[in-house]
Amino acid sequence: MAERLSRGAFRLTHPVYIQGSASVVGDKEGQGPLGRCFDLIVKDSHFGCETWEQAESRFQREAVIRAVKKCGLDCAEVDVICAGDLINQCTGSAYGLRELEIPFLGLYGACSTMAEGLVTASLLVEGGSAERAAAVTSSHFSTAERQFRAPLSYGGQRTPTSQWTCTAAGAAVLSRDKGEVGICGGCIGVIRDMEINDITNMGAAMAPAAADTISRYLEATGTVPSDYSAIVTGDLGSHGSRLLVGLLQREGIDISAVHSDCGAMIFDAETQDTHCGGSGCGCSASVLCGHFLPRIASGEEGDVLFAATGALMSAMSVQQGETIPAIAHLVHLRRRTAND
Amino acid sequence: MAERLSRGAFRLTHPVYIQGSASVVGDKEGQGPLGRCFDLIVKDSHFGCETWEQAESRFQREAVIRAVKKCGLDCAEVDVICAGDLINQCTGSAYGLRELEIPFLGLYGACSTMAEGLVTASLLVEGGSAERAAAVTSSHFSTAERQFRAPLSYGGQRTPTSQWTCTAAGAAVLSRDKGEVGICGGCIGVIRDMEINDITNMGAAMAPAAADTISRYLEATGTVPSDYSAIVTGDLGSHGSRLLVGLLQREGIDISAVHSDCGAMIFDAETQDTHCGGSGCGCSASVLCGHFLPRIASGEEGDVLFAATGALMSAMSVQQGETIPAIAHLVHLRRRTAND
Repeated sequence: MAERLSRGAFRLTHPVYIQGSASVVGDKEGQGPLGRCFDLIVKDSHFGCETWEQAESRFQREAVIRAVKKCGLDCAEVDVICAGDLINQCTGSAYGLRELEIPFLGLYGACSTMAEGLVTASLLVEGGSAERAAAVTSSHFSTAERQFRAPLSYGGQRTPTSQWTCTAAGAAVLSRDKGEVGICGGCIGVIRDMEINDITNMGAAMAPAAADTISRYLEATGTVPSDYSAIVTGDLGSHGSRLLVGLLQREGIDISAVHSDCGAMIFDAETQDTHCGGSGCGCSASVLCGHFLPRIASGEEGDVLFAATGALMSAMSVQQGETIPAIAHLVHLRRRTAND
Repeated sequence: MAERLSRGAFRLTHPVYIQGSASVVGDKEGQGPLGRCFDLIVKDSHFGCETWEQAESRFQREAVIRAVKKCGLDCAEVDVICAGDLINQCTGSAYGLRELEIPFLGLYGACSTMAEGLVTASLLVEGGSAERAAAVTSSHFSTAERQFRAPLSYGGQRTPTSQWTCTAAGAAVLSRDKGEVGICGGCIGVIRDMEINDITNMGAAMAPAAADTISRYLEATGTVPSDYSAIVTGDLGSHGSRLLVGLLQREGIDISAVHSDCGAMIFDAETQDTHCGGSGCGCSASVLCGHFLPRIASGEEGDVLFAATGALMSAMSVQQGETIPAIAHLVHLRRRTAND
């Protein structure tokens, strides 16, 4: 059973394990500081397809196939996959995973999707309805840029707080008993809106949601930041990360010594011209699968909180004068112990 | 515990109950054959808002508030809400539910969302992570028409197989012990694509997904159509419904005596000029909450399978030459028994 700790926060009495995971990224991500940790770097932004949307689908499918293969399994042995992406109507996932014929739960959590997928998949496995469940998400610089901002050929100048949507996908396969990294708890996010309406400053829009979810999970578990070797956010970027640390400090919670942000880690902002860092669902998913999960498995990290944030606006809602609501979902990861 | 029956199909050893539900529909839906069963009929398609998108958000919020109130609860007593809609980036849900501050799992299942939400919410409650969970979805004729087809003022002629997107929302609150209608099983859909590429013939695109999910659930449970008083699909419409019955007949499964489709029921096609019937996430959600749940509670219906279908394309994917993948999720509903 999962144990309800407070609204949205839960503990898994028996952890659910990440049996295998994989990351597939684009050329720019491969050239970044984490380049060596990814399973596959694809130099062609079209990934051999006719459109960027088809390419994003292929990134996502490739990540799932590799994660399943690492488990020594076939897709037919996965009971359900929790998947989503940023493209309108989540077509990156629908077309990407169509041919795999895995029972499919479509999610929309914007860039929080990997954490939302891990929360959902872990609860399905723990609850008994699935033997194995997968979570996957993707993003693509070129599909996101033209959908949310402007056509690439427009060549708009990017503001100092802007981030660079990663071309990347990450997938993880969860099981009841196999794997070195366990999910032992989590927290479902509440929508937070601090009335930011600048779509080139997503870090500011999302930081309050991250602060809320992290703070609620710490309170529900009676833990403090120093109980974790890392508290990882998805794609707040450097600006949003500073805001997050500040917001939590006001509540008397100091995460500065243990906080990392996948968006701030994936690029070298100075040499790669990415301003505040990477973003997109695939950013946190690929950094989790490529960097953090292996480090937790090896013991280089202890307990880790992975809190991915998502901005829940659309291009149209912003044009209609709406502000940007945001959400953050969280999973608590740790290495398998002798007691498990 | 949930018991895994086969990939995607599960039984709930102890049913999860629908403690309360509500439906809010537009004027045209209110004038249809089911008009008297809905909780609120809103004559103004803007619902007092400036845009149709804001109106759709208000339909969804109103449905949740009414469902929660019928349970004698406050939104603060709902642990999680599973929500989604058809608008790009699911903004109908994000903006609609933002102020309710309920932990939020965003779903994208197109018009299958109500069934996907009930599957997910019931598994969270059964698994113990939530005491009470809600599911909600909405659609709006005017937000869908301009996003998926053409601006309303274009006045395009509608083809014979077309359907009319309902302006409607339905919400249900699930609990471990209270309520007269139980969810005792379900089935997560697999994406099916029979290479239909006509976005004015969604019934044909979605019928194979419904056939697949219904057939898988019957097989997993060892049941036959006559074990159910109704096998209800979401919005196949009259054309898609005929295809569904035919597809299952080829497999030796005859559902003709017990099949109903919410899309075919909600309008009078002849007098309301809706061609093959209603569609949209809100169609199946409002007909489930307004019509079927009260009938199950009263004993007018026995065991009911509710299988809502969704078409997972976008306007862009069709323009790029893609076909229409579809999915159907299913929940098994029945009246509380003395043994429960």
